[in-house]
Amino acid sequence: MKVLFIGDVVGEMGREMLHDYLPKLKREYKPQVTIVNGENAAGGRGITEKIYKGFLSDGVDVVTMGNHTWDNKEIFDFIQDAKKMIRPANYPEDTTPGQGIVYVKVNQVELAVINLQGRVFLNDLDDPFRKADQLVNEARQRTPFIFVDFHAEVTSEKQALAWYLDGRASAVVGTHTHVQTNDARILPQGTAYLTDVGMTGPYDGILGMGREAVIQKFLSQMPTRFEVPKIGRKVLSACLIELNDQTGAAKSIQNFMINDDRPFGGDF
Amino acid sequence: MKVLFIGDVVGEMGREMLHDYLPKLKREYKPQVTIVNGENAAGGRGITEKIYKGFLSDGVDVVTMGNHTWDNKEIFDFIQDAKKMIRPANYPEDTTPGQGIVYVKVNQVELAVINLQGRVFLNDLDDPFRKADQLVNEARQRTPFIFVDFHAEVTSEKQALAWYLDGRASAVVGTHTHVQTNDARILPQGTAYLTDVGMTGPYDGILGMGREAVIQKFLSQMPTRFEVPKIGRKVLSACLIELNDQTGAAKSIQNFMINDDRPFGGDF
Amino acid sequence: MKVLFIGDVVGEMGREMLHDYLPKLKREYKPQVTIVNGENAAGGRGITEKIYKGFLSDGVDVVTMGNHTWDNKEIFDFIQDAKKMIRPANYPEDTTPGQGIVYVKVNQVELAVINLQGRVFLNDLDDPFRKADQLVNEARQRTPFIFVDFHAEVTSEKQALAWYLDGRASAVVGTHTHVQTNDARILPQGTAYLTDVGMTGPYDGILGMGREAVIQKFLSQMPTRFEVPKIGRKVLSACLIELNDQTGAAKSIQNFMINDDRPFGGDF
Amino acid sequence: MKVLFIGDVVGEMGREMLHDYLPKLKREYKPQVTIVNGENAAGGRGITEKIYKGFLSDGVDVVTMGNHTWDNKEIFDFIQDAKKMIRPANYPEDTTPGQGIVYVKVNQVELAVINLQGRVFLNDLDDPFRKADQLVNEARQRTPFIFVDFHAEVTSEKQALAWYLDGRASAVVGTHTHVQTNDARILPQGTAYLTDVGMTGPYDGILGMGREAVIQKFLSQMPTRFEVPKIGRKVLSACLIELNDQTGAAKSIQNFMINDDRPFGGDF
Ligand SMILES: [Fe+2]
Ligand SMILES: [Fe+2]
Ligand SMILES: [Fe+2]
Ligand SMILES: [Fe+2]
Ligand SMILES: [Fe+2]
Ligand SMILES: [Fe+2]
Ligand SMILES: [Fe+2]
Ligand SMILES: [Fe+2]
Repeated sequence: MKVLFIGDVVGEMGREMLHDYLPKLKREYKPQVTIVNGENAAGGRGITEKIYKGFLSDGVDVVTMGNHTWDNKEIFDFIQDAKKMIRPANYPEDTTPGQGIVYVKVNQVELAVINLQGRVFLNDLDDPFRKADQLVNEARQRTPFIFVDFHAEVTSEKQALAWYLDGRASAVVGTHTHVQTNDARILPQGTAYLTDVGMTGPYDGILGMGREAVIQKFLSQMPTRFEVPKIGRKVLSACLIELNDQTGAAKSIQNFMINDDRPFGGDF
Repeated sequence: MKVLFIGDVVGEMGREMLHDYLPKLKREYKPQVTIVNGENAAGGRGITEKIYKGFLSDGVDVVTMGNHTWDNKEIFDFIQDAKKMIRPANYPEDTTPGQGIVYVKVNQVELAVINLQGRVFLNDLDDPFRKADQLVNEARQRTPFIFVDFHAEVTSEKQALAWYLDGRASAVVGTHTHVQTNDARILPQGTAYLTDVGMTGPYDGILGMGREAVIQKFLSQMPTRFEVPKIGRKVLSACLIELNDQTGAAKSIQNFMINDDRPFGGDF
Repeated sequence: MKVLFIGDVVGEMGREMLHDYLPKLKREYKPQVTIVNGENAAGGRGITEKIYKGFLSDGVDVVTMGNHTWDNKEIFDFIQDAKKMIRPANYPEDTTPGQGIVYVKVNQVELAVINLQGRVFLNDLDDPFRKADQLVNEARQRTPFIFVDFHAEVTSEKQALAWYLDGRASAVVGTHTHVQTNDARILPQGTAYLTDVGMTGPYDGILGMGREAVIQKFLSQMPTRFEVPKIGRKVLSACLIELNDQTGAAKSIQNFMINDDRPFGGDF
Repeated sequence: MKVLFIGDVVGEMGREMLHDYLPKLKREYKPQVTIVNGENAAGGRGITEKIYKGFLSDGVDVVTMGNHTWDNKEIFDFIQDAKKMIRPANYPEDTTPGQGIVYVKVNQVELAVINLQGRVFLNDLDDPFRKADQLVNEARQRTPFIFVDFHAEVTSEKQALAWYLDGRASAVVGTHTHVQTNDARILPQGTAYLTDVGMTGPYDGILGMGREAVIQKFLSQMPTRFEVPKIGRKVLSACLIELNDQTGAAKSIQNFMINDDRPFGGDF
């Protein structure tokens, strides 16, 4: 089974990039499942129903989210019916709409997709390690194919969760920092790992935001409104993971970016 | 001018990796200057004089540091005389021994090497942006070749400083997260950039530390003593930057890692 | 029922202060239950079995703890048998020795004493609000007399928990900041509240630590070893709460400090 | 010289409280100078010109601010002309409008009023200790009467600055936590100190905000809009400091609150 994961889609330019390249990526790599992180899809802050449905019609199978899930209030109107969207599973059970795990049919089998959020320098959620335990155990009753998007800030928490799940999940990939890391590897027990997939959207911003405002914030230390640029060069950040069709263990993981410096079609 | 930068050397395994591969790297890439981040060289916490001198005799030209500079108290005994070591320049001027900038002779010219530390989720130092301004302006009186090791946690602060210095520094590379990023690029005005170079040391730890203890800390939330493993597989993380010999602008930047999954000698 | 609570006892001077004044306080105010926060009792960092037993023989009924519970490793040897000690109940259940709630016999009734820890700027524990729900509900099966020591950093989290438990707990008092607040009050539904009880120990330190080292840390931003002074003026910080003997609702709460500026025997 | 300081005025209810009680407080205590922290005066977020001018016509001499200074964008239109307003002096010099110190005429002498902001868990400003050094030294050229509003989160930073300035400033009082502390004292070298003055506004909110929303935020961990209640019971938090008219050293400091539980006219 091949799984394509595309990192945090930021604003209109991110959505365009996804729309333009997903057909080409599917043609080239033939993933059975495509997963996209959409927490920044609506102007950098959350997602709307229209954008969510646009992702699905672009060919996305699952939309994962993160700490920005709730930024666009429209989410509360449609998340309950958004069967292909997951938000971090370790938000508190009794106050959080939506779901944290979804199963995608792939021929005769299923891929479980889990979204979790780290706690270091982020919200005070339930423990992602124990929630991972619970969900992975639950999923393994149904399938050995388990994909985890761990939305977290610090490298230690991401590496720790991956090692913790090594041999139990097929893949643990990180999102949130908006910068792709170069550490894709398969851990000893068969879990594919990448600390961060990176972002999809403006190439010349800072984490996808207009860079003058971000620099100004660092200089002035005042509250500053960040906006996602609408024109300019773009980037798509992704990884492709291949799983053993019997065991669910990872056979390969390859991260890549598409931008002016690394045009598509070049070897990655 | 070619500059080789090797990311945070962690403990004995990191030092061995540097010792073993620096000769090969020099043979292969012929850098005129080699810079190593040594903030974790002594058992993960700081550096000793013996290790510092070992680095120099291994062929290192400049040792940069970071938030762990002061962890091994021996530093206070030798930093004043360690002419090839720099610590983050934005520690307070009147209480901090050592220096934050050093000039390395390369034939008829000089490379200025600057060490700065971010503030987001780290110590409350002086503003790294304004300190960068000051030091880069000072350095440009002497030379157009300016290399910055920006030791910082978050991607936004690192990207912001790089864009802020674009066209004024030859290169801005990040350290501290111990995970190499995949975003090496040359910014429009000629500054080479890489969010994080990554670490040099144990390959199967968590940020170079024994992984059982780190996982246990996340699970138990109790104070936990981390130790650097002394045996096991190793990694070296680095980048190679080539500068235009007239202007000091970057011509290329290439990041790479050496480990069991990516043995040296393969194309990077 | 009258309950005396004495805030974070810091080091030897704190223990002396408790030893010297507890008899006088008992004589004067006749509390049926005395509770002491002991997280800093052993040189500022944790507690030992000897100190714990000394507290009991001084007349303490319950010792509460906080984020420093685990600093002195001896705790792991005796916490399981320390029937009168509670540590924050929202540490993870499966990895944490000890207990988070204890019941104290007072004539024919019981006082439930609960220890919880905040999450803002502290460890990533389980949700203190939901854990409070669970424990208060459990306790109310047995008794209407419920006392909560909420060990937390920020005023918002402390006030929020108190209002959340208003009418369900007899008292919610805060610890951890080592500074007594002046906001003792009874909330509309009958819960006594004080944001922080303050500390017991050196009067001329900074939070009980030697002040030169603390100032030096702010100035130098370097790792600094703090020590608790062993000589000098002392302070004891406490509050006295009286509960309605039928309903368990608070009738009064009075905070006070004993030190050179506010000698005991003066009206508080 | 007597100085009255009134803590963070929050929203309309806070402004009403100030308007109603300042005349009475002046009649009773006859302060020569009245200082008010106004960072939350406009609906909890910043201040407007109209509110600022209202404070002055209510009899306020100096308005101090804090981390919320910039929340209401109107500030940028009038701060340059607001001669009686100070914002934290350790915001970066070159990007921050307004001033951080002001001198108030009191008969033949002057009171210097300084506003500083802490860095722990707050913005990355310039070092408040060194900025305090600079401003206090500057002020002492003109006057021995120096009042500091240190707007900071943690008790350690506040105590540290007070001890650091002991004997050099007449008074160091804290703001920001919105909870009055009970530790008013005069340090050995003559500096009056209070960790936090507390807030002025809604008495039954959480830090002055509607409490349901704050509790909901802790429970849900989602972004939540806080609003200041417009009706309900109110509180005013303040302290009164008397200085030696020759030396500027503090003779007394008395903190107090006015609310339903502690009506004005009772002894404080
Ligand atoms: Fe994102
Ligand atoms: Fe995120
Ligand atoms: Fe490091
Ligand atoms: Fe570091
Ligand atoms: Fe404490
Ligand atoms: Fe504590
Ligand atoms: Fe405030
Ligand atoms: Fe504030």
